[in-house]
Amino acid sequence: MVEELTAILGAGRVLTGVAAERGYDCDAYTVDRSRPAAVVLPETTDEVAAVVRWCNRTRTPFTARGAGTGLSGGALPALGGVVISTKRMTRILNVELENRCLTAQAGATNKSLSDAVEQYGLHFAPDPSSATVSTLGGNIAENSGGPHTLKYGVTAGHIRSVRMVDPSGEILELGSAVPGAPGLDFLGLVVGGEGTLGVVTEATVNLAPLPTLVATSLVAFGSVQAATKTVAAIIADGVIPAALELIDKGILTAITAAFGMTFPPGSEALLLVECDGPDANEEMERVKTLCAENGSFDYRRAANEKERQELWRARKKGIGAMGRLAPTIVTHDGVIPRSKLPEMLETVYAVAKQYDLGVANIFHAGDGNLHPCFYFDDRVPGVVERVVAAGEAIIRRCIELGGSVSGEHGIGVEKLDMMPLMFGPEDLRLQADAKAIFNTGDLCNPCKVLPNQKSCVEHVRRWRGVAW
Amino acid sequence: MVEELTAILGAGRVLTGVAAERGYDCDAYTVDRSRPAAVVLPETTDEVAAVVRWCNRTRTPFTARGAGTGLSGGALPALGGVVISTKRMTRILNVELENRCLTAQAGATNKSLSDAVEQYGLHFAPDPSSATVSTLGGNIAENSGGPHTLKYGVTAGHIRSVRMVDPSGEILELGSAVPGAPGLDFLGLVVGGEGTLGVVTEATVNLAPLPTLVATSLVAFGSVQAATKTVAAIIADGVIPAALELIDKGILTAITAAFGMTFPPGSEALLLVECDGPDANEEMERVKTLCAENGSFDYRRAANEKERQELWRARKKGIGAMGRLAPTIVTHDGVIPRSKLPEMLETVYAVAKQYDLGVANIFHAGDGNLHPCFYFDDRVPGVVERVVAAGEAIIRRCIELGGSVSGEHGIGVEKLDMMPLMFGPEDLRLQADAKAIFNTGDLCNPCKVLPNQKSCVEHVRRWRGVAW
Repeated sequence: MVEELTAILGAGRVLTGVAAERGYDCDAYTVDRSRPAAVVLPETTDEVAAVVRWCNRTRTPFTARGAGTGLSGGALPALGGVVISTKRMTRILNVELENRCLTAQAGATNKSLSDAVEQYGLHFAPDPSSATVSTLGGNIAENSGGPHTLKYGVTAGHIRSVRMVDPSGEILELGSAVPGAPGLDFLGLVVGGEGTLGVVTEATVNLAPLPTLVATSLVAFGSVQAATKTVAAIIADGVIPAALELIDKGILTAITAAFGMTFPPGSEALLLVECDGPDANEEMERVKTLCAENGSFDYRRAANEKERQELWRARKKGIGAMGRLAPTIVTHDGVIPRSKLPEMLETVYAVAKQYDLGVANIFHAGDGNLHPCFYFDDRVPGVVERVVAAGEAIIRRCIELGGSVSGEHGIGVEKLDMMPLMFGPEDLRLQADAKAIFNTGDLCNPCKVLPNQKSCVEHVRRWRGVAW
Repeated sequence: MVEELTAILGAGRVLTGVAAERGYDCDAYTVDRSRPAAVVLPETTDEVAAVVRWCNRTRTPFTARGAGTGLSGGALPALGGVVISTKRMTRILNVELENRCLTAQAGATNKSLSDAVEQYGLHFAPDPSSATVSTLGGNIAENSGGPHTLKYGVTAGHIRSVRMVDPSGEILELGSAVPGAPGLDFLGLVVGGEGTLGVVTEATVNLAPLPTLVATSLVAFGSVQAATKTVAAIIADGVIPAALELIDKGILTAITAAFGMTFPPGSEALLLVECDGPDANEEMERVKTLCAENGSFDYRRAANEKERQELWRARKKGIGAMGRLAPTIVTHDGVIPRSKLPEMLETVYAVAKQYDLGVANIFHAGDGNLHPCFYFDDRVPGVVERVVAAGEAIIRRCIELGGSVSGEHGIGVEKLDMMPLMFGPEDLRLQADAKAIFNTGDLCNPCKVLPNQKSCVEHVRRWRGVAW
């Protein structure tokens, strides 16, 4: 295997052994692991295509991987085989200011795309929390959101076209650099396809103007209920902040324990609000009024960029700080219409109590995108089962309230068996039919998104410790 | 047929004879006509599903139709059968301000959606030129653009979910009212699917804030070249106007002939520029400077809403005015990266000269979306062949310049045989595979988008007067 792949790619471009097994056996969803036989580091689309054709000849499964920051196991090599890393595919190929677009290789990071055009007052708008390291290809696979999704939308709205190696090794061009391409639009399948339809190697993306003015505030509430009602009130009033994030008491306690940051006494929830664009000041004044009307008791606005970064610190350090609360954290991901936030948060706390688990919440409230974090000690017998049951209870409630099984982290392997909660057999058949347009085999990123893939029984059994 | 359909829908809901044949044998693409056997007027999704199931039982082709303002024959009943009109499906079902969305039946017009939420400072952003009468379902089928697409994007970006009767008569719910729905996204196929994947009966759409400030100007140039270079310069400078429309001398002459409107002497091209949002005034000042730097010689800015409507009049009356130039007008539709506008316009004039045709241009320049209008007398022998050949030459050049076979009017029947200019056999196979997810038969809007559909040979032969 190594010899043949090295013959295709050249020396130093194929990793095996410990280097491959330790670094590439999972992504940021660490609950499930599976070791690849080899990791390859192609530099061009043609090299990716050659690797994929080799995998087809030898019946070797393959899984593309960007920075490995995905949270649902999308880059997990579930059946082993070859991991195709885009680590060396970081080139920006073209910037067209007149057409407001940029073409880059899939391994370029969000940050590098924005850095390349900052001098022109532009940026690539998608900003997952991992934006400094996460890659364009990973963003496309997962249709990534982020704190600023509320105003700027998920990745799908920012991708004009992709170059993709299909599961047979053919190179396809999908989408169009110009608006309104004719025929059926495949980008909606590929963006968010979690790498199951092929390996995206290049993409042409929209460039958006950098906001000229940014206003950021951190607002304290005496109850989560008051904070979630404020979220709905802000949107209903007509203000669309660039970001509208909620942090509850559990997270604040963790941040104080971990980093010594303090918050106004009596804070049961904080809202981090950012408005941008020429109306930012007026919008923020309106937000301040609405917060007060809905029961906020402390309002701090950043006077400069340094203070702004300080306010964001609580949001950005929140998840990391949770390590102080318990040895293990499982971050769930669901979404509901934002008007349902107050009752959904009540469900989250009630479910945690019912299953005797710690829970803390830090999430994109403006999108209605929940991230309840359960914290626990996984050495306690039975606790993992309780966490799984609690997660399912929360997701069921999200669906009941008109939401969905995943907000922004994707299905991957994590939520495979939750798909039937949301999709009936006919819906799942449609999904399988759509996948089969590109992927009729079982080699390209197997065992993801769609449950009950034949070749995956072994993996699932090993992973779950149960037969399905 | 009438009895059975009336049994399903009730009295007065089935049209046949002259009423059906005269009013429903084409849409706004009038070059091709085909008479339906009946037109039905359902009021609910269940009624549409019942009609579609009846069509399946009786092997009757069916074609959905909104206002019939489509420009490529998407609502043409190519093989006769039943036209399913959404004329009676105009209800707005739900408005959710907190979630910034609205749910309506497919027959609701763009205008009615916006009117319903104007009191809240919101609107439905897509604005095809036919917005007062064109329907939500038609917008979805054609993924409609419009003058404000430049800033606000085509319809696809504004649709959250749809209810659709699939070609077998099953009711599907696709998409999600919340962002980031899991699984493969079918909306990209259905929006822009030109009604070939099923009959959309309801949709939940985004509501966007009405701009608080609007600035509109009409700017005159001594050459088309100067005007097109200005378009690229404006975008490259960082200003994204809400609308950026170009009107050339041919159109101006027609408008003067038809409506007596006058324009600054020496105008070879006008740019209509509209900026909106809180920065509108600053943006318009910048536009003014850029126009001057690129050779404009006259600049008029609307001082109030009345003057704004007056400036828009030239744009809105342009196509209608062309009736003064010749008995027949064929409006083409192509798109290129906007940086290529100067050389593309040169091609348009050169092609018209080569084929001895009159040509005038009025189009969404900011999008690079061309609409060359050929005007001619179709009673002159051989002229239609020249128009067809000229159109193909223009589309070929669009594709060479990185653009596409259709900008916003769709493929329909009009551009069926141009699809292979842009798509190879493998691309067309992918398109057919994608269609087959929903539509494996040949009853639902046959003979559209994909060339060489077996059942359509007769229609094509009759229409083109040639065998394919």
